Amino acid sequence: MFYIGIDLGGTNTAVGIVDDHGQILAQTTGKTPVGQPVNAYLACMSECIRCVLKTAGLQITEIRSIGIGIPGIVDTARGTVTQCTNLDWYDVPFQRFMEQVFPLPILMDNDANLAALAESCAGASIGCSSSVLITLGTGVGSGIILGGRPWSGAFGQAGELGHSTLVADGIPCRCGRNGCMEQYCSATALVRNARQICGAFPQTIMCQMAGGDLLDLTAKMVIDAAKEGDPYACRVFDRYTHYLALAIDSIINTLDPEIVLIGGGISHAGDFLLNAVRNKIPRHENGSPRPIARIELAKLRNGAGLIGAAMLGRQL
Amino acid sequence: MFYIGIDLGGTNTAVGIVDDHGQILAQTTGKTPVGQPVNAYLACMSECIRCVLKTAGLQITEIRSIGIGIPGIVDTARGTVTQCTNLDWYDVPFQRFMEQVFPLPILMDNDANLAALAESCAGASIGCSSSVLITLGTGVGSGIILGGRPWSGAFGQAGELGHSTLVADGIPCRCGRNGCMEQYCSATALVRNARQICGAFPQTIMCQMAGGDLLDLTAKMVIDAAKEGDPYACRVFDRYTHYLALAIDSIINTLDPEIVLIGGGISHAGDFLLNAVRNKIPRHENGSPRPIARIELAKLRNGAGLIGAAMLGRQL
Repeated sequence: MFYIGIDLGGTNTAVGIVDDHGQILAQTTGKTPVGQPVNAYLACMSECIRCVLKTAGLQITEIRSIGIGIPGIVDTARGTVTQCTNLDWYDVPFQRFMEQVFPLPILMDNDANLAALAESCAGASIGCSSSVLITLGTGVGSGIILGGRPWSGAFGQAGELGHSTLVADGIPCRCGRNGCMEQYCSATALVRNARQICGAFPQTIMCQMAGGDLLDLTAKMVIDAAKEGDPYACRVFDRYTHYLALAIDSIINTLDPEIVLIGGGISHAGDFLLNAVRNKIPRHENGSPRPIARIELAKLRNGAGLIGAAMLGRQL
Repeated sequence: MFYIGIDLGGTNTAVGIVDDHGQILAQTTGKTPVGQPVNAYLACMSECIRCVLKTAGLQITEIRSIGIGIPGIVDTARGTVTQCTNLDWYDVPFQRFMEQVFPLPILMDNDANLAALAESCAGASIGCSSSVLITLGTGVGSGIILGGRPWSGAFGQAGELGHSTLVADGIPCRCGRNGCMEQYCSATALVRNARQICGAFPQTIMCQMAGGDLLDLTAKMVIDAAKEGDPYACRVFDRYTHYLALAIDSIINTLDPEIVLIGGGISHAGDFLLNAVRNKIPRHENGSPRPIARIELAKLRNGAGLIGAAMLGRQL
């Protein structure tokens, strides 16, 4: 059985054909027609679908379903995009529009949920019926899989872990709250703290790495400096993983999933990150060890959104 | 159809017969034989079941199932009590023991989850397929219902919201962590803060209410003083509901349930509590209102655990 997955991004629309094991057989990319009417989106997707079918040597009749990942809030029950700031879409019944063009089941979900679903079909959480994927980049995204399916919430807004409170009355967040996890666990937060340390301790090798201009300092530089044992970078990284471990521990206390995955740019730090986080999460209670979620790195990079979208059809 | 529910507490074992609507037809209570072998528990439950069947005028053949609420960690898949400190049970396959005595489907779950299930069958969250119940008492308990069923987690440990971090590096908690929600949102936390204020400002009416001995100060007194407009009690209550609102907002951001219920002793504050909490949760994002979880008081008091245990059978 084959499935079409569409990752509708604010810049590009990625379309692919995926098999039952979550492997991509063919894929292509079109420019997302932001600002244009819905018909332009349908035309773009049609063209991409024609292209991938041809590449894979398949007919549309051999496709089980079309799944679409949306970078916003999706009402999966009604098939409506409730809110997608990047596309300037509000209450767009996109599933119905798609059904009028394609004679196939159309499924939609939030892209962060679908990245988590992709990991559970073809990535680091294969075989786990419950998992949480935290994506650490400019912001913090997350997707929740429970009972093998994305948990989108009652109003399509579940998985906004980045805006749960980690430090009550802490650093102001762009969402209007204070002390959101995102302000402590995003790559942005790591770099912000490193810049402060650089200002106070110019002897840190992070300053050299940034070439003198702290605006050029990246999360990768901070992590590389910590790996090399620079005490200032180590301090920043230790503080960062302290907060990340608290956030993951709270997820475990709330949802008790089989596995928690760390993805996004920060996850390139690999075992260095994993070990630091794992060591900071209590695994013992009342003196005896208890089974709790494994903590691992996400495996899928590009293509996760597309694979997850396609895999929505595997649950039909 | 009728169901037997058993609420196995550390002191008493409550047993009842419940109908499809979650109404109790008959109930009785036995003393939990703590410290005695499993056979003593089975004998106690048999005796209670015989009693309630007689009261309700029913035969065991008219019963669909027996559900049991456990004040600890339950492996619902294996039917095992993983850990129950109150009963000193560890890895007890209690479901199998029950099946050897009763010719009925036996179901088990954690008591906090079952209180949430009871609310969704016969209480404040009827008709909601997703809900979270937070119980504010000496500690903070919680139960999560998703897709109409209790979410127990991969290892039976979901819903420990009381030990998710609300204030990173905050007040030490009995669990070994720092800054757990329980340290800010339990009745214990409310009273602790009120006592501190009383020490500094003896003119507060809370001191009179306590009769001079601050150890006699209760959560009810603090709330009553706040209702009467005592500025010191108001300050304590405002701080308390600030933290509670942050915790509920985080639950909404993570799980996006249809409804969040507040139960436990603190919930007797009623609308005074509800209004304070509701006013502190942002309902608008990007300038436009968005649908989010309702926040309400739990309805069921005694009997919730028993009803929830019985209602496990409705899902067979």
